[in-house]
Order: sequence, then C-alpha cells, then structure tokens
Amino acid sequence: MIIMKTEASQEQVGQVINAVEACGLHVHLSKGEERTIIGVVGDIRSVRQEQFLHLAGIDRILSISRPYKIASREFIPQNSVFPLDGVQIGGEGVVLIAGPCSVENRETLLETAHAVREAGAHALRGGAYKPRTSPYAFQGLGEQGLEYLAEAREATGLPVVTEVMSPEQVPLVSRYADVLQIGARNMQNYALLHAAGESQKTVLLKRGMSATVDELLMAAEYILSHGNRRVILCERGIRTYETSTRNTTDINAIPVLKSLTHLPVILDPSHSTGLWQYVTAIARAGIAAGADGLIVEVHPRPEEALSDGGQSLKPERFAELVGQVRLISEAVGRKLAEKKPLPSPFAGPH
Amino acid sequence: MIIMKTEASQEQVGQVINAVEACGLHVHLSKGEERTIIGVVGDIRSVRQEQFLHLAGIDRILSISRPYKIASREFIPQNSVFPLDGVQIGGEGVVLIAGPCSVENRETLLETAHAVREAGAHALRGGAYKPRTSPYAFQGLGEQGLEYLAEAREATGLPVVTEVMSPEQVPLVSRYADVLQIGARNMQNYALLHAAGESQKTVLLKRGMSATVDELLMAAEYILSHGNRRVILCERGIRTYETSTRNTTDINAIPVLKSLTHLPVILDPSHSTGLWQYVTAIARAGIAAGADGLIVEVHPRPEEALSDGGQSLKPERFAELVGQVRLISEAVGRKLAEKKPLPSPFAGPH
Amino acid sequence: MIIMKTEASQEQVGQVINAVEACGLHVHLSKGEERTIIGVVGDIRSVRQEQFLHLAGIDRILSISRPYKIASREFIPQNSVFPLDGVQIGGEGVVLIAGPCSVENRETLLETAHAVREAGAHALRGGAYKPRTSPYAFQGLGEQGLEYLAEAREATGLPVVTEVMSPEQVPLVSRYADVLQIGARNMQNYALLHAAGESQKTVLLKRGMSATVDELLMAAEYILSHGNRRVILCERGIRTYETSTRNTTDINAIPVLKSLTHLPVILDPSHSTGLWQYVTAIARAGIAAGADGLIVEVHPRPEEALSDGGQSLKPERFAELVGQVRLISEAVGRKLAEKKPLPSPFAGPH
Amino acid sequence: MIIMKTEASQEQVGQVINAVEACGLHVHLSKGEERTIIGVVGDIRSVRQEQFLHLAGIDRILSISRPYKIASREFIPQNSVFPLDGVQIGGEGVVLIAGPCSVENRETLLETAHAVREAGAHALRGGAYKPRTSPYAFQGLGEQGLEYLAEAREATGLPVVTEVMSPEQVPLVSRYADVLQIGARNMQNYALLHAAGESQKTVLLKRGMSATVDELLMAAEYILSHGNRRVILCERGIRTYETSTRNTTDINAIPVLKSLTHLPVILDPSHSTGLWQYVTAIARAGIAAGADGLIVEVHPRPEEALSDGGQSLKPERFAELVGQVRLISEAVGRKLAEKKPLPSPFAGPH
Repeated sequence: MIIMKTEASQEQVGQVINAVEACGLHVHLSKGEERTIIGVVGDIRSVRQEQFLHLAGIDRILSISRPYKIASREFIPQNSVFPLDGVQIGGEGVVLIAGPCSVENRETLLETAHAVREAGAHALRGGAYKPRTSPYAFQGLGEQGLEYLAEAREATGLPVVTEVMSPEQVPLVSRYADVLQIGARNMQNYALLHAAGESQKTVLLKRGMSATVDELLMAAEYILSHGNRRVILCERGIRTYETSTRNTTDINAIPVLKSLTHLPVILDPSHSTGLWQYVTAIARAGIAAGADGLIVEVHPRPEEALSDGGQSLKPERFAELVGQVRLISEAVGRKLAEKKPLPSPFAGPH
Repeated sequence: MIIMKTEASQEQVGQVINAVEACGLHVHLSKGEERTIIGVVGDIRSVRQEQFLHLAGIDRILSISRPYKIASREFIPQNSVFPLDGVQIGGEGVVLIAGPCSVENRETLLETAHAVREAGAHALRGGAYKPRTSPYAFQGLGEQGLEYLAEAREATGLPVVTEVMSPEQVPLVSRYADVLQIGARNMQNYALLHAAGESQKTVLLKRGMSATVDELLMAAEYILSHGNRRVILCERGIRTYETSTRNTTDINAIPVLKSLTHLPVILDPSHSTGLWQYVTAIARAGIAAGADGLIVEVHPRPEEALSDGGQSLKPERFAELVGQVRLISEAVGRKLAEKKPLPSPFAGPH
Repeated sequence: MIIMKTEASQEQVGQVINAVEACGLHVHLSKGEERTIIGVVGDIRSVRQEQFLHLAGIDRILSISRPYKIASREFIPQNSVFPLDGVQIGGEGVVLIAGPCSVENRETLLETAHAVREAGAHALRGGAYKPRTSPYAFQGLGEQGLEYLAEAREATGLPVVTEVMSPEQVPLVSRYADVLQIGARNMQNYALLHAAGESQKTVLLKRGMSATVDELLMAAEYILSHGNRRVILCERGIRTYETSTRNTTDINAIPVLKSLTHLPVILDPSHSTGLWQYVTAIARAGIAAGADGLIVEVHPRPEEALSDGGQSLKPERFAELVGQVRLISEAVGRKLAEKKPLPSPFAGPH
Repeated sequence: MIIMKTEASQEQVGQVINAVEACGLHVHLSKGEERTIIGVVGDIRSVRQEQFLHLAGIDRILSISRPYKIASREFIPQNSVFPLDGVQIGGEGVVLIAGPCSVENRETLLETAHAVREAGAHALRGGAYKPRTSPYAFQGLGEQGLEYLAEAREATGLPVVTEVMSPEQVPLVSRYADVLQIGARNMQNYALLHAAGESQKTVLLKRGMSATVDELLMAAEYILSHGNRRVILCERGIRTYETSTRNTTDINAIPVLKSLTHLPVILDPSHSTGLWQYVTAIARAGIAAGADGLIVEVHPRPEEALSDGGQSLKPERFAELVGQVRLISEAVGRKLAEKKPLPSPFAGPH
C-alpha cells in the first residue's frame, strides 16, 4: 500500500502506477478527499520497497499484514467517528437505533417512531424492502414504505436506517434514507457493496450468517475501497448448532473487531437472540463488551407484526432497555449519545 | 396452492383470485406453459377449502406442508429432467461439468476445454465474473472471458456453465452461457434469483455456505415461482468447525434433497473439500449417494492458477475420476450420460 | 414427578412406587433431606394422574415439560444459593474464581494464590489433573498438585476449585478440594457425573465443547438425581466455524440458563475467548448478561505457563478486571460477593 | 521420536533415555513386540539430532510433524490390518458390523443376530451399557446384556462389539466382548482411553460429536501409546447447524483419515444421518469414499426399539444395503470381507 503525499500531482500518481505495473503487479487506486492511496495487488514477494523510494510524491509505503487494508487499525489507528444526522457514532456516545422489523403501514410506523424517540432512540430502523426466505412471505411495502419512513423522520427528527437489497435500489433508497443497511444475506453481494461504496451514504453492514470476522472486514473493504469511508459494522449473531436461541451472539466479535478496525461496531440483540426475553440482557452485554451502539426491533403490538414479532420489544420494554444500557455505558466510562433537540413545529429538520 | 385446469380461462383465474383475496389472503400467480397455479399466501388457518370448490376451472387444491411448493416432490412427484444442450440432466445419466475455476486467458481455457471433453466431461465450467472475498483479488476477465467461453464451446461442443453475480449481468451472460450459475454467496440474493427466474436459461444454484437444505429449496422456489422451471441444485460443502478440509461435504444433503425435491442435484467435490487429493474420493461418494452429476475444477497447471489452484485436478487426474465415477454409476444402476458427437469441422453446433 | 409430603412414611413411598410400577412405568427415587421425590420414567401417555390421587403421602404431582426435572425452574422457582466456603454463590453477590490453568509448582501456585486473593478473588482455581488433547503433553502434578492447592488454601483462606477426571479420583480430590470441577470433555462422562452426584462436594460443571443448553442441563440432572444439589453451571465457549478466537462465547446461554434453571451460572472468559486481550471485555459482558460469577485464568508469567499461557491474565490485569466487573455488577443492581476475612496467622481455617 | 534397533539392549535404551533427559526433555517409552520407541516430549527446538547419533542401539530418529505419532502414516506407512475374530479389518475386504442400538432382551437380540448374520454381517453390535442424555432414559441391561451378547456370539459365530463407558468396566466387558467400543461422548475420556490402551482388546473409537480429525487421532494416540495397537476409527457424523438430519456425515473425514493414518476407518451411517431412509445411500457413499467397513443399526421392529428406532433398519432393508455395498466395494476394487463359516452345532467357536 503506497500512500501518496497530500500534495502529490496526478502525474506523480501516474508514475508510481507505471512503476508498480512494470513489476507485473496491479494497482488499486483509492482517491480520498485528502490523498491518493495506491493499493498494490499481486505477488509482492519478489519486489523490494526500495525500488519505489526514489519516485516523487510518495509519503510512505505500508505493508499490511491483514488481507484488508483501509479497514484496518494498522492503517488508521484512531477510531472513525462520523455523524448520523447530528449524532456522532464511533465516539464516546453510545448510539441506539430502534424501530420495527418492517414498515407495515403509516400509522404503526409513526406510532413506533414517536415511542422509540421518547424512550431515547437516536435513529429509526424499518425495512421497506425485506429479504425473506420464502417468495410467498411479505416482501415489504417498497417505495411506499420509504415514503412513510421519510414522514416519520420529519415528525420525529430521527434519521432513518433502511435496507437496500440490490445495486439498482441504491439511488432510490438513498433519496429517502440516512443510512443504507446491507443485510446479512447480502454481505458478500459484491455488486451491492460496489454500489454502496460509490454512494455518499453511511452504510450499516451486517455480518453474514456464517461469515468470519475477517470476511466481514473484507466486505467492508469493498465499500471503503470504492471511496465511501462511512461504514458501521454490525454483529447480528452467527449460525451454530445451538437451537435454544435463533442465532448465537458472537460477543467475542465485539472486542475482536474493535481491536482490528477503526470502524464503529454495533450489536443487533434482536436478531442475535431471536427471542425478546433475552434482548435486554444481550444488549447490556454488547455495550459492556465495547460496542458503539445497538440496533433493536421495537413494535407496539409484536403479536401482530408481519415479521419477527417474537423478537420485537414493546416500547415500554425498550424504554427499560435504554435505562439499563445507560447504566452499563457509564460503567464502561461512556454515556448515551447526545440527542438532537426535537424538530420545531415551525422549522422541519430538512 | 390451487391448481387450475389446463383449459381454465383467464376469467376463471380472475374469479379464483378474487375469492382468495376476499378471504384476506394474497395470491402468488405462476403461469406455466400448461396451466396456471395460484399460490395462496397468508394465514390460511381460518379458511376452509370447501369455500373454493364451487368455482369453475379449478383442477385441485393442494395443501403443501413444506414452505416451498413448486420445488417439492409433493407437488411434482417425478424427477425433473431437462436438456443441457443435448445431454439430459436429472435422468438416468450422470452428468459431468468440468473446467477451470476462472477463465484466465484464451489459450489455457481452450486447452482445458479440449482436455475435459476428451476425458469425458459433458459441459464446461469457467468463471468470467468471480466473487472474491478480497476487493484486491483477481475479479475475472468479464465479457472478454465470456467470449473465450463461447469460443471454447464452438471448438468442443460443450455447453457452458458460468457464474452471474448481479441482476443486470443476466442478459449479457445469457447471450454467451448455456447455464447461469448462482454462487454460494448469492444464494439469497433475491434480486438475482428474481432475474434468473425471469430468464429462460437453466440455472445452477449453489447452496450457501451455511444454508440449510430448506433454505436452498426456498431459494430455488424464488426462481421457480418466477416462471423458470430449469433449476439444478448443487451441494458444495458447508461451513463447520472442522479445518482439515476447506468445507465439509454435506453428503447427507444428497439423499435428503432427492427425497424432498424433483429437481436434479449435483455435487461440487472441488469446493466441498478444497484439496485436490480428496476430490476423486468425494466425487465417488457423491454419485454413490445418488447425485445426478458433478461439477469439478480442472486446470492444466494448478500451481499457476489465479484462483483455487489447490483444489483443481490436472486433466489426467480428472480422466481417472471419470473412469472411477463410471464404475460407481454402474454400481448404483446408472451410467454416465451420453455425450453429443463432437462438432463437425464443417458445421458448427449452433 | 410425584412429590411426597415431608411427613410421608417409608411405607407410603413404597405404595406409590408399587402403583407406578403396576402401570408398566419405572421410578427414579430421589430422597432429599426434606422429602422424597419420585420421578416417573416411561411412556406416561396412557396414564392419568387421577389414578394416583387417592394414595396417601403425596403432596403434588408435577408434569415437567422439559426433559430435565430437578434442574428446572418449573420445579424449583427460586435461585439455588449455596456457600462456597463462606462466600454465597447464586445470590446477589458476584463470585470470582481465579488461578492458574494447571498447578505447576509450589512457589508459582502460592504466588498466584496470594495475588488473586489480593486482587479480589473469592476462590482459587488450578488443575492437578489435566485433560490434555495429546498424551505427550504435561498431564498435571497429580496428588502433589492437590497438596500444593491445600497449602495455598491454608495460606490465603481461598476455597479451592480443581478438576476431577474419573470416578475413582473423586474420593481423593474431595479430600483436598472445596469444589469438584468437571471439564468440558467430561460433561457427558456419565460414570463421573454419577460419582460426583454421590459425593457431598459442590460441583462446577462445564458445558461441553458443542453441547446444547439442554444437554448441559441434562448433565446437571445426572448429578442432581444422585442426591447432590450443589451444582454450578459454567459457560466456557462453544465450537463454531469462527477462528479469530479459540471458542465462541455463547453469551445468549447466560440469560437462557438463568431462565430455565435455578442453579448458579458462571462464565469462563479465558477459555471462551482463548486470548487474554479479550478476557476482560467478555468478563464484563458475562456479568452484564446476568452471570453469577466468573472463573478466570491468572498466571504471574503467562509466557512461561505449561498450558494456556495465551489466555492467562497477569495479576495486575486481573486486578483491573475485578475493578471493571465491580462497576458492571453495580450497574445491574448487584455487587461483588463479600469476602471472608483473611485467615488469622494464629488460627488457620482448617 | 527415536526408534531403537530391534536388537537394542535394555541398557542401550536406558542410555538414550538418560541422554534425552539430560537435555531437559521427557521421554515417552513405548515397548512394542519388536522394538522400543522413545517418544521425546518437550521443547525440542534447542536440541540437535546429532547429539544422539553416537549412542548405540538407535535405528533412526524421526521428526513427526503431526501432534500424533504412533497413529500417523509418517510413522507406519502401510495399512494396519488385524483380525476381528477371523475376519480381517483394514485390508482389502470391507467389514460390516450390525445389530441393535441396545440389547433389549434375549429373544430380540438372538433374532437380530441371526438376521444380520444371514444378511451378510461380519460382527454383531449391541449396547449393554448405554450412555443416555437423560438420567431417566433406559440405561441398558448391564452385565445381563453382556451375557445375551455372548450367547448370540455362540449361536451365530459373530464377534461382538459393545460399548464400555468407564475404566472400571473394561475388565468385565473384555470378558464378554471381542471389540470394546468407546462412544462419541467419551472420545476424550482419558482415563477410559488409558484403560482401553492397557487392555489387549481391539478398540472401536468413535469420533466425538464435534471433535476434529486431529483430535480423533490424538485420542487414538492415547490408546496406542499405552501399548494397544488395535484401534478402529469410526466417523459417526458431526454436529453442525443443519437440522434435516440428526448429524452431518463428514464424508471428507474418510479420505482425510485414510491419508493421515494407517488405522482402519469405518463409517456409522445410522448415527451420521439419524434417519433410516438415508442410511443405505450414506453407507454406499462411505465405501465409495474409501471406508474399510460400516457399523449399522438393525432392529426387527424399529417402532418398538427402546432407543434409536428412527435410525434402525429392518433386517430386510439391511440385506438390501449389503447387496448395494457389495457392488460399490467392487466398483472401488475391493470386496466384502470373507466370512468365517457358521459355527458347527457340534463345536462352538470358543
């Protein structure tokens, strides 16, 4: 990985690329706002770094021992912190995202959005496009759902997190959402990662059902390497032999990820347990282990939910969760993130 | 699931749909060549079948106990058999698909295609678009690779199996390929399944890395329910704790799938072991367990392969595999599928 | 399960047994200190409870829906709390057990025992008999190790937890230890569970490497059904496909177990991560999730440890862990358990 | 690993041991019938082989790269073949062991023994001591069951394979059985492995529910290193996330084990699938993959079996299995093992 100086010219970048290719290697160019980074791809064993040191414009050459580069803490030692519509994620404050599994209708969504806002959530989740195992199951409201989400944001001031399922949905969903969620089933949908990487939206990337920590970071690297540096990683439980819960929360992954990457790491205790009874205990555990936030399913009447009712909390139970997570946050030297003030009735947030 | 008579009119179909929707249920319409099937989606517990029996045009009403319908043997008891450019798959004959992991260049591809044809393969595999864990790894030759594949087909008469990674690639890849492969990482990429379901191409659907048998059948159902009935299922090893091989061949899945579905089932012993030393033994096991075919990675110089060299067989070892698989096929009362004659130099196969 | 009245006579018990056996069923007698419980074993579908209601001495008849009975919260709703040589486990106080993986020599053990006592541990762990994957690895000091452990208890007042590997070791180890540990590999060694069930010692039962929560409770049931009611359950990580840590901490198992059983539940973050860097974060998570205690490997010079060096904390890092766990305990409305006063130099505790 | 010459004297062995211990290493002595092998245990990185070359009586010094030694093919390149009461296992002939899960009563056992003998089995399986997850489930007939097994052997001439669950059972079970089975739950019960290693009986060692191939070989090494060289390894399915079968047959383990070790390897398709419908297909696959034999559960009336009824074959289905396995054996260049002639009514086999 060759990091160019901030003032390096286009010509100097070209000379370095030529030199790399002359060695039989390929380059992966990533032009950040500040500087260009030239990833060197190929069998580098026969190449010595000294060959490049005489070239102009090079700041430093980094040898990355992990297969991912931009995602690694070796490359960026300090935590990545970025705003989620006013709230900082990745910093000291713990961020809570909450809402229904899927957007079912306008009234329920607005009711839930107000309830989670009241209880202390910083952002609203809700799926307009739902990846369902069965082609015969409810597939989401589509663009209509996006419109309801936008209305809920208007009404509550909460930024919106919603799933995007294919590259062609990216522009449409980006018009409505603050954060593009890439679901577990799509963690290695490279066309989608590519499209998300080219958008300017924050991406919430969920770990695949049986992806390793390294594979999750490689998936993040796809997004990062296409120019988008705002990626939030999400542990959502892995598939194991144990059947007493829907998935097995890989709580180890929280401190492992925090040590390997500078990206924010959150936990989804709703999917990682699959049973509402255990969501609050595992939410506490996630923050105790070092997570930067939570994404939690909340539904006013879980028994009527069109999907994931069994793992959704009622608003009052979510409020208890927020109280308990606040105490755990303080016990680990953090606090809940500061909320933006409620939108004024006279001046909408957008 | 309501199966209409073959002679049912459009109007009769409409009446049934109205009746279903009047019960608060949704329909999933699948218009086959012969007849229309109306899948009934929703909570059917409060609905009695008798309510529909007076409607005209209904052949029978089937209650499917499995979450998948069209894929199930309850629905279609006899094996689905369909041609792979002249060779039948799903019938008595065992079908062998072989070739390199990825198309690397014209010469190597042609060399490999001739070698696997000679050894007894019925179809050529090779990736032009490669899903790679790392964004910095070789991603395939793209359309250039498709052109080489078409040339190899011309030269050897072997139909071509190649991977498609996103919905927008489907039309392009369909122009070159005989079979669209959907890889393990994309087994639940629903937009891609949808697009493949709307194409008229045979689809080879690989089981996800940690998908259950039921999830594989649900993914097939996505394709089937969009009108494409030519789906081949492929066991390619699952992810377990065991590290002595790259994946764990779920050999049980072969007879389980053969009992649950009428679709052809093949095994990929190259990915399911990850080590060429074990490929032939597991290929034998797959056919002994009842698989309808194999897809095997072959490379003339595995040590130079850009991907998956460690699991690729040399052509001479593949020829041994074919000989051993022939004996196993006969031991289970089958045989290797009949090959089409080699294309005449004066008359191309298309 | 037939629960006899506390005042039921031996004769009444006999009559009930006869009645049960007359129905073609078998009985499992468990005579507790207060009352006799008659477990009914066999196919009870054809038997009605009313048949037994006229018999004298029966308190109530309980139908247990889980395969385990005595271990279940349905049977004993309140938490089981019992003393660990002066410290209560299973109650409000969080209990910390710490020490080396194996007893290596007298000096190191005493040094470690004093260090963990100082840091806040309530009990000392250390293996005299070590189950090792390889017959050529260090197998422990045997009885010599038990003697060193007894000396360390004398010196520090800490009760001793040590592993027992076969039924015939139970009497010997019981002479030296306060708590018999049954390791993950022996969770379903029924002869050992039987012997531990007949001893009067508290048993620390570790979950098997790939045991389900239900199997862990069934293993506990073996001990309980042989008359020993002092069983501590220990989550120590399960085996999954993930390799970034030695095992995967099944943090979900903590609240699941707490809801299914009245027995105390502790976490072993050393084995469940396998890497000292992550032990403290996962220790915090365990207490946040509701565990009643921790068992942690501590070694003064991990790089010299004969086993498990990579997952052992230095004493100063363990002291930090204790401080952080104290804060988490308070955040969940608990506290660290009260320690017994240090043994007076003039009056040893034994 | 130092291999002494066959003619090496006791004194020479002593000198080598002294030299090894002088380097701060420990020895593991294994005295075979022909020669003594001195396993060197400890950190050998600072020791050079040349230091020992001047000592008398040394044949060669072998550096074993695997953690197991005596079990490895590096150490013994040719297949281990040994008699199972007249039938050879590990050689060209495929060996079939069949019988009920547990010995339930005299009549059923004798009926089953005759039926499997007739169908072509070479040995009789049946559990007198049953490891059961629940303490309330049928635990086997104990010594009574062993007596029935002995009677069945007398009547049919079939050698008997039966499980031993604790070290103290080894002498008793050895009096009745030809082969001591160590079950999956006890694969790492080291006291039991030790006792089996000191017996002179052939041991059938089943792979643990989530043991790696390497751990299975290390468990075998425990037995081998205590002097017993007759160990049969048995793949019986591993625990994975897949629930359509009871376990996942790790068919890869067959060729992997055959390449790593010289010991015979068999497959248990009854436990590895858990459903009788799939047993025959997986039995075929096992032999096709290179297994040296099968152990199959057979019961005349599976619906009445006290344990494992769902996975037991009826005798007529077992006869079909034998026929199909014979064809597969021949397809891989082997055959079914030769059976001993039926015991004469005038001269019992013992």
